[in-house]
Parts: sequence; C-alpha cells; structure tokens
Amino acid sequence: MQHNQVFNGLSRRELLSLIGITAGSAVMYQAMTSLGLAEESGYKGPLKLDGDPKGASVLILGAGLAGMTAALEMRQAGYKVQILEFNDRAGGRNWTLRGGDTYTELGGETQTCEFDEGMYLNPGPWRIPYHHNGLLAYCKRLGVALEPFQQLNHNAFLHSSKAFGGKPQRVRHIKTDFRGHVSELLAKVTQKSQLESSVTKEDQEILLEALKSWGALDADYGYRAGHLTSEYRGFEKDPGGGLGAAPVAGEPIGLPDILNSRLWGNLANYALYEFQTTMFQPVGGIDMIGKAFAREVGDLIKYNAKVSKIEQNDTGVTVTYEDTKNPGTPQQASADWCICTIPLTILSQIEINVGAPMQAAIEAVPYASSVKVGLQFKRRFWEEDDLIFGGVSYTDLPIAQISYPSTDFNKGGKGVLLGCYTWNGPNSYEFTSMSPAERVRLAVEYGSQIHPQYKDEFETGIAVAWHRVPFTLGCAGDWTEEARKEHYDNLCQIDGRIVLAGEHASYIPAWMEGAILSSLDAVSRLHQRVLAG
Amino acid sequence: MQHNQVFNGLSRRELLSLIGITAGSAVMYQAMTSLGLAEESGYKGPLKLDGDPKGASVLILGAGLAGMTAALEMRQAGYKVQILEFNDRAGGRNWTLRGGDTYTELGGETQTCEFDEGMYLNPGPWRIPYHHNGLLAYCKRLGVALEPFQQLNHNAFLHSSKAFGGKPQRVRHIKTDFRGHVSELLAKVTQKSQLESSVTKEDQEILLEALKSWGALDADYGYRAGHLTSEYRGFEKDPGGGLGAAPVAGEPIGLPDILNSRLWGNLANYALYEFQTTMFQPVGGIDMIGKAFAREVGDLIKYNAKVSKIEQNDTGVTVTYEDTKNPGTPQQASADWCICTIPLTILSQIEINVGAPMQAAIEAVPYASSVKVGLQFKRRFWEEDDLIFGGVSYTDLPIAQISYPSTDFNKGGKGVLLGCYTWNGPNSYEFTSMSPAERVRLAVEYGSQIHPQYKDEFETGIAVAWHRVPFTLGCAGDWTEEARKEHYDNLCQIDGRIVLAGEHASYIPAWMEGAILSSLDAVSRLHQRVLAG
Repeated sequence: MQHNQVFNGLSRRELLSLIGITAGSAVMYQAMTSLGLAEESGYKGPLKLDGDPKGASVLILGAGLAGMTAALEMRQAGYKVQILEFNDRAGGRNWTLRGGDTYTELGGETQTCEFDEGMYLNPGPWRIPYHHNGLLAYCKRLGVALEPFQQLNHNAFLHSSKAFGGKPQRVRHIKTDFRGHVSELLAKVTQKSQLESSVTKEDQEILLEALKSWGALDADYGYRAGHLTSEYRGFEKDPGGGLGAAPVAGEPIGLPDILNSRLWGNLANYALYEFQTTMFQPVGGIDMIGKAFAREVGDLIKYNAKVSKIEQNDTGVTVTYEDTKNPGTPQQASADWCICTIPLTILSQIEINVGAPMQAAIEAVPYASSVKVGLQFKRRFWEEDDLIFGGVSYTDLPIAQISYPSTDFNKGGKGVLLGCYTWNGPNSYEFTSMSPAERVRLAVEYGSQIHPQYKDEFETGIAVAWHRVPFTLGCAGDWTEEARKEHYDNLCQIDGRIVLAGEHASYIPAWMEGAILSSLDAVSRLHQRVLAG
Repeated sequence: MQHNQVFNGLSRRELLSLIGITAGSAVMYQAMTSLGLAEESGYKGPLKLDGDPKGASVLILGAGLAGMTAALEMRQAGYKVQILEFNDRAGGRNWTLRGGDTYTELGGETQTCEFDEGMYLNPGPWRIPYHHNGLLAYCKRLGVALEPFQQLNHNAFLHSSKAFGGKPQRVRHIKTDFRGHVSELLAKVTQKSQLESSVTKEDQEILLEALKSWGALDADYGYRAGHLTSEYRGFEKDPGGGLGAAPVAGEPIGLPDILNSRLWGNLANYALYEFQTTMFQPVGGIDMIGKAFAREVGDLIKYNAKVSKIEQNDTGVTVTYEDTKNPGTPQQASADWCICTIPLTILSQIEINVGAPMQAAIEAVPYASSVKVGLQFKRRFWEEDDLIFGGVSYTDLPIAQISYPSTDFNKGGKGVLLGCYTWNGPNSYEFTSMSPAERVRLAVEYGSQIHPQYKDEFETGIAVAWHRVPFTLGCAGDWTEEARKEHYDNLCQIDGRIVLAGEHASYIPAWMEGAILSSLDAVSRLHQRVLAG
C-alpha cells in the first residue's frame, strides 16, 4: 500500500486495515482501489501470526534471507525453530567479499580477496529498488543503514566497440539527443497535420508545446546546437566565472549516428521500474542485511550442514545432513514441519519425498548464469579524470557493464569497480569456463578500452562465476513464462509437511525482495495449516 | 577537463598541461578538442599564483564563498589578507538553520528555529551538480563530506490543482506514459512512411526498433496496459512471493489527459544538466562548506563589519565600516587592493569611486526573489506511507515544490521538508510580503492538498524570504541577456585597485560554483596586475 491519506478522521491505512481484518485481503484490495489508492505492494505489512502453534517445531533449510525471515517470524510466533546452513556463515547469496576473505569455487580454485580495508565486492545482490517494501521494512526493523545506490549517472558512458570509433559516449548525450531528435521528428509531422486521426487539433497544439519543452526544441521546433540544447546535454565549454567565461554550446550527435550505434538500447537500464531512483544499498556492503538477520536468529543456525535427504511422513520431517567440518558420519534433524529454501539447482539433486507435481517443479527451473568481477584501483580516476560519480556504464564488450562505487564520493583514494557483470548469454558461459585470474585479466583488458587509466591504476581483482558457486550452482531462478504457468503454483504449494521458499518461489526472481516475500507467504500458509491441525 | 586518457605513455592531462604551459589556454582548448576531449570545465584546476606579491595587501569584502576562496588563495600566494564581513558568521548565503538559531529579517521579524537535533533547512544553496568541479575540488581539499542529493525520485508527485481532480500523479507515470505515447505516435507515422524526407529507409527500421525499446511499445508499436509498460511505469499490483503473487498491470494515463494536465512541463526539472544525477549535498547541512573555509581563513575575518564607503586612490583602497555590535564610530581598513564580493543590491547603495562603466554595471543587475519554507513533521509519512525517498514534487500551487530530505532514508523518526521553494514571479513577492508565521501556515495549508498527512503531523516551521535577508536583499543576480551584453565585462574588469567577485560576476548565477569560479578568475587577474606593478 503506497498511500496513506487521512480519511474522515481515520487514516486510510487504519480504515483499510479494518476492512482487511473483517473481510479479507481481496475486499481490501478492492477498497484500496475505490479509495483512489491505485497500487498495491507485494508486501502486505508486518506479519501477524495470531494463534498458538502449541509447541510445533519447524526445521528451516538454508540461512539465506528467506530462511532467516522464516526463522525470525516463526520463533516470534511461538515455534521451536532450527536452521541448517551449508556455508560457515549466514546470508547465502547476500554476500560481500572483503580483504582477507577466501572463496573456493566449484573446480577447486581458491581466491583470497586482497582489497584494502573498506573496499568490497557484492558478488550477488547489490541494490534495492524503492518499492521493495518488504526488504526495506526488515532493514528498518533490524537497523540496517541504507545509502542511495546510483544506477543512472548522466556522466557515465555508453560504449559500443562498433560505433563512434570505439569512443565511449556520455549517457547525457545519447539520452538527451535521442529525445531531442524524436521530439523534432514528431513535431514536424504534427505541424504538417499528419497526426489528425490520432490527436485532436487542440491537443496537437499542446503536444507541440510539450515536445518543445521536453525535447529542448527551439522556436522552429528544431533540435540544434545552441544554448538551449546545452542546458540539457551539457556544454562544449561549461559556463565559468569572471572574464572570458561565457559557455560554448556543444554539437548534438546526429540521429543517424545514434540510431546506428544502437546505444539507445541501453537507455532502458535507467528507465525500468526496478532501476529507477531512488535505489539503495546498505552502508558498508550488502551483507549488512544478512548479518542483521543473523544477529536475531544466529543462535538457531547449525553451520556447515550439507543436506543429503529430506524425508517426511504423517508426523514430521527428518533431514539427513553431513557436518562438512567432520565428514563421514551422517546426522539427522527432525521437526514437525520443514521450510526448505535450498536453491532448486541443489534441491533437485537431493532425495526428497514430495509429490510428483512439486518434484517436477523443482526440476523445471534453470538458473541464470552470471559473472561479477571486482577490480581495485590505486585511485578513483573515474571521479578525478572523468567526473563519473557512481552509476553504470554499459558496453557491447563481454564485460557488459562497469559500475562505479556509490559511496565515498569525491574523497579520492582507492576504489573498487564492478568491472564485469554479465547476465546469461555466451559471455557469461565463457567467463565461467575461465580461471578466476583469467576473468580478472580480461576484465581489465576490456575495461581499458573504456577507461585507458585501467592499465596504470589496476591493483587486484576477484571474480565470482555463479554457476561455480557451490551453494547455489547458478545465480537465480530463471523462469520462462511457460514453466511458470505449469509449475509455479506446484512449487509453492505446501506438500504434506514441507513448503519451499526463496527468490525462486516468487515473481521477483534474483531480487532479495523475492526471497523475503516468498518466505512471508510460505510462513503464513504454513501457520494456517498448523493451526488447522 | 573531463577526460584523462593515457596517450602514448604521457597521460592526456600531462600532455595538455605541457601544451597549456608553453602556449596558453586557447591553444590548450584547441588541443583538447583535437584529442577528442570534447568538453572544458569552467574550473581550470587548482590555482597557481606564481611570482612574489612582495608584501602586497588585499582587503576582501564579504566572507561568503567568493571572499573566502580569494582569502585562501591569496594568503597562500604571500599576500597580507583581511576580510570584513557583515554577519556574525562566515558563509554568507551558504547558510543552514538549525534548532536554536535565530534570524531577523528586514522588517524586524525574528524567528527562532525550533527544529529537533539533526534537522535543518538550507535557506540558500542546497545542492551541487557533478560538473561543478571548482566547488567539488574545494570540498575535497577542505574535507567536506558529500552525500547524494536526490533531485529526481520517480515516486515523487507531479501535481496540478486543475488536473486529475487535484490528485497528485507519480513522476514515473507522467514520465513513462508521455514517452510511451510520443514513441507510439512517431512509430505510427514512421510505419506510414511519412518521415521519408528526414530519415533514410534503413534508419527508419532502426528508429522503429529504438522507439519500441525506449517507449516500451508492444509488437504492434502500441503503448498499452500490460506487463511490458508496467515494467517501466510500475504495476497496479506489484509482483510478490509465493501463491497469488502474480503482478497486475496498470493502465497508462491517456495522452490527452497528460497533455491537458500540463504536468509534462515539470519533466525538465529532472532533465536539465544542472539537475542530472549524480547531484550532491554536504553531509549535515550546506554550511559545512562555509565552515570548512572558515576553518582555513576564519582568523582573517572581522565580523559585524557594515561597510559604508569604499575609496581608492593611486596607492591603495580604504574602506569605511561600522562595527554593528558597537555602532556609532566609523572605522577604517586599508590595503593595496580590494576584492569586493558584496551583493550588488547592497553595493549599489554604498559609496564607491569606480569608473562609470563599473558603476553602471553595479546598478544594472536585479536580484531574484525567492522564498523557502522548512517544515518539521512528527514522522516521515512521505517515506512510510507514500514510499517517497528524497526527490522533489512539483505543483502549480504557490508553494511550487516540496523537496524530501536526501538523508537518513528508511530510518523513521522526524523529518524536515522543504515545503515551499519559489523562484521569482508573483508567488515569491506575495510570500515575501507576508509575516514568517503566515508563510509557514500557508505552506502547510497548500502542502496538505498533496500530502493530507501534513495536518496531523506538522510540528514547526521557519521561512526565509530572500528579498528580506539583510545581507543580500535578494537571492542572486538575475541577469538578462541584454544586461549581460552591456554590463557583464564592465562588472568583472579590474577598476583601478578594485575587482568584484561573487556569483553575480559569473555565468553560473545563484550557484556556489559561480561564486568560486568568479573569485578564482578575479584573483588570477588581480595577481597578474600586482606582478605587473
């Protein structure tokens, strides 16, 4: 619920809450709409698990965000809770690599992170949209300090190795000039009355005004070099102070050049709902979230527990696991109920006696391939030389993106760039097949085509290829529309005494919000089941 | 210089610096351009005042950013420096009001700020564009910590009292839907081959692709309700986790409604070069900048000094002033040279023996009218109820804007909104004519049309009308193009032993960068004059 207006003395939230309590959430959604509150969040507000579970126990598999959310809520509701976790830390993909950390990927290669104090890479999730209310609510509740994450910096680069002689272009130029040319073209046909059928005569007058304002068109509806366009795209020579300080206008990039460069294709990365301002990141690394959860439920977690079998019967669930620090002797944990957040890549390899529909669903979801490389540099040349403060540059090179740190702006000193971030496609697979050192070497080599300073300033790097991450074997659930239609509900249904949760059991795959909302929904339904006896 | 690429072993910056040293800056600018470094900043890098001023002294009038920049640089270059300042603090318009501060405006009304600890209003400058390199360089040098300032938050409101029944609209809806409709219209005429003369057939194919991508058009080039458009504008019901969590698409706002609402006119506020991401603000209040300067040059400042006369002759400059804490006895200060940063509104009322051209220039620049009102609320309802994290809402109501704090996100607790920010026009004059209490009362009343929570949550406010600010009598120099043509160079020329500086002597009026660049230019030229004997 995104609105809370005061309504006849009762706040709308209070009113809606009353309606919700008496008539259920479908009626509540209708009420919201009729009150003019257009939108509903995937997060329904703090979980209220009323009713006594009467000593029921729950075994949670996985201490990622989904597992810890479930643990937090269910212990509070009176359940006996234990968590089994494969890693020797909580958080799962909510994970930050800092100097001194070591990481061994599938294939046996071990990297030791050599970043300086205060530098880090978030190999997995790294940014939070403003509408991920569930996650934001837990950050608030658990005291996780947030700072803005810059997705769009108008001074970052769009780069194509096949356009503009390989010279990177400023985002603000491509963005402003494309909008300007489009406005000019539409204004021209509007003036020629070629729109008559679709827009009324009166509206055409306003449309012309709007295009002029929006596109920075001149009095003749032209998008041309001059002070006006420079006020939007920046100047050739910026205005200054004192004598000889008059600005010099820049020359817009021609429409054919923009079109053929295909750099316009990157603009969506700044416009999507998930990437719009204001985005956030936790101060100090994404794992501040996992650590905050672990402060609450860490006492419930058994680490280094590798699950090999999940077995349920009419009275409970028994899980067989191995203590990876003392291997050889299978151990068991039992509870009345089980919430399993193990990624489907791994769960599909574990013996579990669920019904055929859930089993088919577990096997139906491929996991995305993704590679991230963090590169530490001696100095923040992107800020000092290029005036790029945060944001993401996009390129057609295999590294796909370069993201600049969203913190410690303008202070100088060292910095870590996200020097490669691929998502599916051949480049992801190719990077995954390389040794970590080779991934880092190539990220530096490719990146230096955009930032030649790389070669002088590079110090050390670390690379995570998600298909080689032992605890997930992939980045995130990569649902197709067809698979979702056939399997999603079967994946989410409670099967006997077992329910699954995690980003893979959500409509927001790969986002932390998906893990949390999935968990809250699973917990709610399981609690109802428990109360129903 | 915004680029620094390594060029045959010599960095481009080094190369340009060599060219600059041997051949002067015009050649250097040409060289920059030919090397493909498209743009030049108004800031030329750290000032280098080589050559011995041989004990020359300079009297600086005004301890704002221009005056303190001059003091910092000239003392370092070997000058004897003193500053006279009207206020009992340094910073000038670089000013922050916090709980316990009192402020008396022209007309005699005194306000005491009653904000809680940690809350503040920046009555004057408040945000820093990423290309204001001069200011950023001083922030770095003086250790002023910066944080991102959110100008654009896609979840903030655009509001017209005459459209949508007065219901505020989300920025993301107006922005996305206008772009979508424009794309659809242009795609239609492109498909009908009505663009033939302006765009080649091949480019038309790419244009259609680009419009589809940019405008979120469907396979038939339509901008319609559905998952695709919702991925940009947001959903009616956001995606969630578990069962029943499928998203529900929202219905775009029709083009006629957007056009007639005229809300499109606000989109420029997020697109202008001066307002593009990434913007900054100092952590803790804008006056952290003035305070940082004052830590360096505070020992040179005589406070409470009200200048009444500036007199130069062949050997020096003598300034007559009154100590406002001990009025009645005129005092004098003398030096070889004078840098005067007093706002022209006030300087035009002071006796000064400069030539007719400078005198005419001093009298030629009106000052903008501006009013800001800060409002403290019991809770951050804009974050908690409306999911607005920073950014600016625009409205056609007299308050013009509501700006949400860009710090302490998602923490809860109290907050101060900028509840009114007018710039010129009848509303500025009207607010200026009111008592401070009335300004605050009206800001709450108008603002509650956008945020009904105002009425319940409001605690205390403070209002600054710049035409009533005793030390400036206006907000900033409001040059017309004609006035600039006739008077600007005359204003900036050294007149005998006097040179003026400040945002009014720049092409970036009303911005801190203008004050600093103006000062650096004045100091450079004055230094050359001194060395020339």
